[in-house]
Amino acid sequence: MQHKLTTEFIGTFFLSLTVCTAAVYGSAGDYAPFAIASALMVMIYAGGHISGAHYNPAVTVSVYLRGACDKDDVLPYIASQIVAAVSAALIAMKLLESGIPINPDAPTPEMFELGTEAVVAELLFTFALAYVILNVATTESTSGNGYYGAAIALVVLAGAMTVGSISLGSFNPAVTSALIVSGKVSLADSWMHFAPQFIGAVLATYVYKFTQSDSS
Amino acid sequence: MQHKLTTEFIGTFFLSLTVCTAAVYGSAGDYAPFAIASALMVMIYAGGHISGAHYNPAVTVSVYLRGACDKDDVLPYIASQIVAAVSAALIAMKLLESGIPINPDAPTPEMFELGTEAVVAELLFTFALAYVILNVATTESTSGNGYYGAAIALVVLAGAMTVGSISLGSFNPAVTSALIVSGKVSLADSWMHFAPQFIGAVLATYVYKFTQSDSS
Amino acid sequence: MQHKLTTEFIGTFFLSLTVCTAAVYGSAGDYAPFAIASALMVMIYAGGHISGAHYNPAVTVSVYLRGACDKDDVLPYIASQIVAAVSAALIAMKLLESGIPINPDAPTPEMFELGTEAVVAELLFTFALAYVILNVATTESTSGNGYYGAAIALVVLAGAMTVGSISLGSFNPAVTSALIVSGKVSLADSWMHFAPQFIGAVLATYVYKFTQSDSS
Amino acid sequence: MQHKLTTEFIGTFFLSLTVCTAAVYGSAGDYAPFAIASALMVMIYAGGHISGAHYNPAVTVSVYLRGACDKDDVLPYIASQIVAAVSAALIAMKLLESGIPINPDAPTPEMFELGTEAVVAELLFTFALAYVILNVATTESTSGNGYYGAAIALVVLAGAMTVGSISLGSFNPAVTSALIVSGKVSLADSWMHFAPQFIGAVLATYVYKFTQSDSS
Repeated sequence: MQHKLTTEFIGTFFLSLTVCTAAVYGSAGDYAPFAIASALMVMIYAGGHISGAHYNPAVTVSVYLRGACDKDDVLPYIASQIVAAVSAALIAMKLLESGIPINPDAPTPEMFELGTEAVVAELLFTFALAYVILNVATTESTSGNGYYGAAIALVVLAGAMTVGSISLGSFNPAVTSALIVSGKVSLADSWMHFAPQFIGAVLATYVYKFTQSDSS
Repeated sequence: MQHKLTTEFIGTFFLSLTVCTAAVYGSAGDYAPFAIASALMVMIYAGGHISGAHYNPAVTVSVYLRGACDKDDVLPYIASQIVAAVSAALIAMKLLESGIPINPDAPTPEMFELGTEAVVAELLFTFALAYVILNVATTESTSGNGYYGAAIALVVLAGAMTVGSISLGSFNPAVTSALIVSGKVSLADSWMHFAPQFIGAVLATYVYKFTQSDSS
Repeated sequence: MQHKLTTEFIGTFFLSLTVCTAAVYGSAGDYAPFAIASALMVMIYAGGHISGAHYNPAVTVSVYLRGACDKDDVLPYIASQIVAAVSAALIAMKLLESGIPINPDAPTPEMFELGTEAVVAELLFTFALAYVILNVATTESTSGNGYYGAAIALVVLAGAMTVGSISLGSFNPAVTSALIVSGKVSLADSWMHFAPQFIGAVLATYVYKFTQSDSS
Repeated sequence: MQHKLTTEFIGTFFLSLTVCTAAVYGSAGDYAPFAIASALMVMIYAGGHISGAHYNPAVTVSVYLRGACDKDDVLPYIASQIVAAVSAALIAMKLLESGIPINPDAPTPEMFELGTEAVVAELLFTFALAYVILNVATTESTSGNGYYGAAIALVVLAGAMTVGSISLGSFNPAVTSALIVSGKVSLADSWMHFAPQFIGAVLATYVYKFTQSDSS
């Protein structure tokens, strides 16, 4: 269990550290989605064999509902993910941000205003993320494949590029927690991330179960 | 059958949603080809084991002519793909577009004028797309490979970057349907997409059969 | 044999078509290396099981010297590659270029002046290309791997980005032939491409043989 | 042994040549991280079966402490890597730099000032690099996978994009040696690279051993 929680911590930590440094503080400029998807991919390949490499509370719920995660793991996993994301946000803020050269073209790191479009965006792409994960990482007919990490990470790449300017492209309640700590999302608005993320992931599980009902 | 059609719907929906949001409404700027190819790749890996992951009526015709798709599946597949693409175009237009920040550098989303070069471009790259699909996803000597999703998606990346400014780089009658709904391609011009896409895909099947005649 | 030559033709044709359209005529702007590497990768995965997917006369020579290509295939392969590259250059020039919107920021497609640095650049990266190919596509201890297409294509991505501004980043006598037809390289300067490309590829074969001498 | 050292030389040479040409002298502009990660990936796939493809003294130490590298290989590997990196820096400086067109927007290639944030950045991402390598390239439960080269290279892509502007994103004492030769890092500041790189890699080994203690 300790090994799994350590693995979830490290993976979520580096994902969130990259989100905060590359995107919130802008060190990667326009390339932030590539940096974020790469960080996610490498941590999935590094940790998948130990913890399943969820790094995302909505994914943990989805995988649990699908029957591929122990009930006793759900809350510890989510706790480890949130603690990792908050730690990463603090380290990015206290130990890295001051080293980023000031870029006059960079957007100011102020609060992002989430609108109703953000709810749709987070719902759709968290659905896609969980749908892909269930199919490439928990299904017998694709088991043993080597592409699962790339497939999962590229959902985040596609989503961050497509709706990043609409909703910030988190698709992950742990990453959203890091965005709250970083002052990018307000607590008052945070339900516009959390609710559609969990709903999208749960919906994906039911759609997945329907499409698998006689083909796995 | 329902599982296959649901899978074709979801895959074509996310591909078309990404095309409309990232490229037509410009949320991904210059990076739209990366977002689109990523969406296609992840949906191929998610759905390939259920429906074959065509997500493209020209591909369905090509795979049918090659003998790797049931005759009874052809029309339902195409119907599901078109409905998915139109749904995605409407959702992008009604629920996402208003959330994209206005970018003064972005091209205005007006009707794109297709010329005769567009016919050549769609013909060549839909040929390439079907040729790659037949070789990596329906051939015995490459069966069991894990690269098929990346290979297929990167044809679209190469094509979108190379001839996107000439023909919009659709290579897919379902995506073209989404572009018509989005007001980017006129119905009057649409044959300049549909005709070369189907012709390119059919040609690819015959070339494929020739190159395989004694080597599979 | 016909199947192999057709496969070499198609692969080299799409690689060269992408080079001419995306890079020489500038349709892909700064992203040309991504388009070119993607075109190469997808054609390697599509044709590798038929012809070995050389698409490059220097690679054909290197693979022949390593003992993984029949002597009788060498000249027909090279002829097919050159004809394909010249055909692609002509189609790009006659049927696609006029459809590319004029971009005031694009560099003018004038003759590129090759200097002595270009000789070093072509030598080094064609060496790297052949060295990678021999190791990932002709070696027993890596046989059956699924990454060979990505590995080979990304040598071209790295090289095009790193020395593209120095030598145009061809690393391939067939592509150089397309560049001559496109008016980007002069016949008088062409030895600054051809000589280091063949020399780099031959050198790679000898280094490869040395490193394999007791480990395959 | 000679085969291994030659392989380490070639891989580290091309990685460092790409770093110096693409990033230090700016030939790849903003795309340098893609060029560098690609060079690393292709050299890992080319040389992994011969030498293990470390190309990085901190990685050699980490892999040795994990028990996957002979003690007698450690110093020769590191020597070969440093000589390769210095050679590449000299070739880039003497034979390639003068061929790069002058770009008025490019940053001047002056000494980069490393701050305390650079120490944190190099520590965190060299930790991540070694952690990923140990999990994807030295662990029984992931053995035989085909994604190891991509996973390792994309740590460098994520890191170079995220903290490149803070620390130059080396994560590799051999690459740092090339940066010293290129005049980008001063000898006086070099401990701010070397110390956190080795410490991060050693820390990763202990964390790796802990997470594997009952799951391999």
